Amino acid sequence: MRTSIATVSLSGPLTEKLTAAARAGFDGVEIFENDLLASPLTPEEIRARCADLGLSIDLYQPMRDIEAVPAEEFARNLRRARAKFALMNRLGADTVLVCSSVSPLAEDDDALAAEQLARLAGLAQDFGIRVAYEALAWGRHVSTYDHAWHIVETAGHPALGTCLDSFHILSRGSDPKGIEDIPGEKIFFLQLADAPLPAMDVLQWSRHHRRFPGQGGFDVAGLLRHVLRAGYDGPLSLEVFNDVFRQAEAGPTAVDARRSLLLLQEEAGLGALPAPVVPTGVAFAELVTPDAEPVSALLGPLGFARTARHRGKPVELWEQGEARVLVNTGPAALPHARLRSRGGTPMSGGTPIDGTTLAAVGLESPDPAAAARRAEALLAPVLPRRRAAEDAPLDAVAAPDGTELFLCATDRPGLPNWRADFEDVPHTPAAGAVVRIDHLSLTQPWHHFDEAVLFHRGVLGLDAQESVDVADPYGLLRSRAVTTADGGVRIPLTVGAAPADDTAHARHIALATDDVVAAARRFVAAGGSLLPIPANYYDDLAARFEFTDGELETYRELGILYDRDTRGEFRHCYTRTVGRVFFELVQRDGGYQGYGAANAPVRLAAQHAVR
Amino acid sequence: MRTSIATVSLSGPLTEKLTAAARAGFDGVEIFENDLLASPLTPEEIRARCADLGLSIDLYQPMRDIEAVPAEEFARNLRRARAKFALMNRLGADTVLVCSSVSPLAEDDDALAAEQLARLAGLAQDFGIRVAYEALAWGRHVSTYDHAWHIVETAGHPALGTCLDSFHILSRGSDPKGIEDIPGEKIFFLQLADAPLPAMDVLQWSRHHRRFPGQGGFDVAGLLRHVLRAGYDGPLSLEVFNDVFRQAEAGPTAVDARRSLLLLQEEAGLGALPAPVVPTGVAFAELVTPDAEPVSALLGPLGFARTARHRGKPVELWEQGEARVLVNTGPAALPHARLRSRGGTPMSGGTPIDGTTLAAVGLESPDPAAAARRAEALLAPVLPRRRAAEDAPLDAVAAPDGTELFLCATDRPGLPNWRADFEDVPHTPAAGAVVRIDHLSLTQPWHHFDEAVLFHRGVLGLDAQESVDVADPYGLLRSRAVTTADGGVRIPLTVGAAPADDTAHARHIALATDDVVAAARRFVAAGGSLLPIPANYYDDLAARFEFTDGELETYRELGILYDRDTRGEFRHCYTRTVGRVFFELVQRDGGYQGYGAANAPVRLAAQHAVR
Repeated sequence: MRTSIATVSLSGPLTEKLTAAARAGFDGVEIFENDLLASPLTPEEIRARCADLGLSIDLYQPMRDIEAVPAEEFARNLRRARAKFALMNRLGADTVLVCSSVSPLAEDDDALAAEQLARLAGLAQDFGIRVAYEALAWGRHVSTYDHAWHIVETAGHPALGTCLDSFHILSRGSDPKGIEDIPGEKIFFLQLADAPLPAMDVLQWSRHHRRFPGQGGFDVAGLLRHVLRAGYDGPLSLEVFNDVFRQAEAGPTAVDARRSLLLLQEEAGLGALPAPVVPTGVAFAELVTPDAEPVSALLGPLGFARTARHRGKPVELWEQGEARVLVNTGPAALPHARLRSRGGTPMSGGTPIDGTTLAAVGLESPDPAAAARRAEALLAPVLPRRRAAEDAPLDAVAAPDGTELFLCATDRPGLPNWRADFEDVPHTPAAGAVVRIDHLSLTQPWHHFDEAVLFHRGVLGLDAQESVDVADPYGLLRSRAVTTADGGVRIPLTVGAAPADDTAHARHIALATDDVVAAARRFVAAGGSLLPIPANYYDDLAARFEFTDGELETYRELGILYDRDTRGEFRHCYTRTVGRVFFELVQRDGGYQGYGAANAPVRLAAQHAVR
Repeated sequence: MRTSIATVSLSGPLTEKLTAAARAGFDGVEIFENDLLASPLTPEEIRARCADLGLSIDLYQPMRDIEAVPAEEFARNLRRARAKFALMNRLGADTVLVCSSVSPLAEDDDALAAEQLARLAGLAQDFGIRVAYEALAWGRHVSTYDHAWHIVETAGHPALGTCLDSFHILSRGSDPKGIEDIPGEKIFFLQLADAPLPAMDVLQWSRHHRRFPGQGGFDVAGLLRHVLRAGYDGPLSLEVFNDVFRQAEAGPTAVDARRSLLLLQEEAGLGALPAPVVPTGVAFAELVTPDAEPVSALLGPLGFARTARHRGKPVELWEQGEARVLVNTGPAALPHARLRSRGGTPMSGGTPIDGTTLAAVGLESPDPAAAARRAEALLAPVLPRRRAAEDAPLDAVAAPDGTELFLCATDRPGLPNWRADFEDVPHTPAAGAVVRIDHLSLTQPWHHFDEAVLFHRGVLGLDAQESVDVADPYGLLRSRAVTTADGGVRIPLTVGAAPADDTAHARHIALATDDVVAAARRFVAAGGSLLPIPANYYDDLAARFEFTDGELETYRELGILYDRDTRGEFRHCYTRTVGRVFFELVQRDGGYQGYGAANAPVRLAAQHAVR
């Protein structure tokens, strides 16, 4: 029989996947939509590449959340499907995978599902396309293969069949014997995968995945309170079996462990720590670089003005609105690349700085000294307060990843003013559209991700948001933001799966603007170069959302990405990377809370492509 | 309150753990038994080290499978406990953790459990020790904290209390409020850990942990047969979402994927592959080394004789019984260090060879040419058959890790004889106790472990044994042996968790002997040096097993390790490591089937210590 492989099964950019599949002797491929979106090749070019390699495109996938929805939603879905069918014609793919809906809009109504799938199949037929309907094991109403087949049979349309996937069938424990009752010609496609039987019983959970208190999902403080009420006065002892800790250097793990216990005791009402002093905003971001020129070549076009320089050190201050960036060309005096691996072997994230990096963050604090006292009580290394006799006495601590966190005040009476260490230089005022720093994305060493989240939560009093997985062409990234309630401080902490991957380890400064198009145009007009985004991405946007006339064309021209959540919209674009740092311009509207995670795979693929 | 940390929560050897705990400000530690066994320090020295660091030893743990067992078993348990209590006195630890039994011998009898625990507590009291009884979440009959407390209460012994562990309580969803009903003075110890709530639902399973057919636990071939009976004739397509594949180089993954489909089709009765030709034994192991001297300095004392040399290349043959080792000082001509990472970044296992390594294996094959035809049909790279005009035409293929596998015959009429490429050199006959190669341990690149198992199973027709996890001081190792039914070929495939860890990546040749003591003595007498094993290990053996007079002393003197399974006994010892290779001497008695996995943590710690 002919053999195929889904591009999602292989690593790297689409062209590498196709070449690997052809060389291994596969006859065809399934094109996974995200691989197409992230590719710089047009659909026609992908089609030609496959033909050159002797590969057929056996399936385009997936189309989601189509069926059993209210009429107006289904009309939108048909519009989206029409765009995808046109794309498939360009690609030369004649079968599309539709997986059973997980949408909260979907109704538990097989007749409606059948009717709408028949209408979808009718549209597909006009394009010469067949629709293969598959039951996801976690589908909202349709989750078994026989249920999916029942709907297909009810629909009774020649262009509608079913797709069988061994994972979805066997993971649910369904009896595959019933497959024999489906007419073979109505099985449009067969996807094969194996999987380890779930070994995640409580013993495995216990021996491999424990965490220090505050780093998991248990109410450990609640339990502790019960134990105290019983009258226990023995030690509080941490017994944590964890595969990652087994590999991490003992010293930092022990510090993280003690910090966890201190926070637990505070939460359980034992012992008193200095109260948290939550920062109110970002005072500055500090880049350390051996050469200020490439950084200046970004900051100038972004609209920043070089306004001041440090009185005693080679540090320049660039300002625009409330956004402040320090560019430090002096020796990296502080331990911001503290190696967190044993034996000096460089591990991910702990790699010594070999170029430009985001090494320090100034946080606007209502009471810097009190914030530092809490940090110190929680075992954060306190950095020297005064770097020179005439400098303002700044409170600073090191985060677990070595980033210097300055707890500071900007031009606030009665508090030491870091700004006073700088003397103004003649400059033309900043003229860009940037108003402040929106967020700072800090990549983390992979050994200590959960600890980093607990540090920012416990020491700085930030709130931890949900953890998000993002697919990079070369591995998965995990990202979790720590923020203040009003969004004045937003720090996404990110960890890459691939230890050797530089792209995944670049940090970035996101600059907030009220008009990302104006900010992007200004940057380009001043000679800046934005990260190019593949045209396929915009075709997908066009299928998914409606835009005003010319809006999408502008985004496509500039490389602006778009996302939407239940509250609002997000538009953003990226500069090229300098060393291990890049900038993002972001426009948040209507209370959008995220960071464009849906666009991260496309952004990461584009960054891999230009390096 | 006082704070403690279990040594198992930290990485590295015991002394590093203690230092890290003290520096982080902990007041005490729990000593995990395996950490003590693997330490070269005596209990008195560990006690002194803790005192110097200002650490108390708050708990010794764990003591397992004590209670609710038949009388004669309990007598053995008391004997074991007495040895451990004596050890604890030397250590200065006054509380021992006893966790609820998981033994198949344990009876569901609370009264018996209480009676035996009271007797254990009576013995402990004589040593000034308290017993803290804890319910493991997966205990055979006792798995909840209130049940454990009920038994402790019934026992009514002053030296018996309970130990509470937040993981065991919260992972089962028990209501911790009931803790308040336990008298505080009977809570002897509190262990704290958090854990992520199980996110391993079917969606996570599907998106991160799929495997190619044959690499998991599903009956994919069975499903395929049903689909074929339904009349499906479309493509067989692999759709595999897997976090590891996302990081691995696309080319080798695609080849592994196609091989999986070929084997699946064979299993489902589609298409015909050349039948498997199962090897019958190990013809030779080949070491590639830049310098033969350090290897010769091991082989000689091990009892090998240098019997022959290759007619055309700098390869020497060493023999003893049926054990044959080739020492190749020529250029490593074949791709045995094929880098399996993208972009040339060295990844674990794919690290370029920088010294001595085990690069090739000769497998005795009933039909070498047929075996090679199957390997080729299954996409194994076939290596040039004849290296020089006068050489025997050898069939050889590359395993996924690059190891050369020679499918060959040794002095068997009618088949090309690899041995004929060697000419004898004058030598004194081998005089050691080694009779054959017992097994070859091949470390694997971490990206392709499951594929390596499928390769050896599908291509060579070997059987895959159960996968075993082994704790290394710096991470977990996973090991899975592929073998013939009669044990003539045994190849444990091992993958380390820590990418940068050389110790975990050394391969080894295990030599079978009928008298490991004689073989070890001969090696030492000839100037060889065996891996030293900590004395604590032998104290533990003495507590666990009974030996004949002087037997244990001999093992202690030589560094011989001991294990037992339901069928027989295993005695083994190790040479020092040369480059990335070491030797093991093994004596199997009574049908023992394993590889001494229980001793691997001690062996690995000892290897870390001498490097």
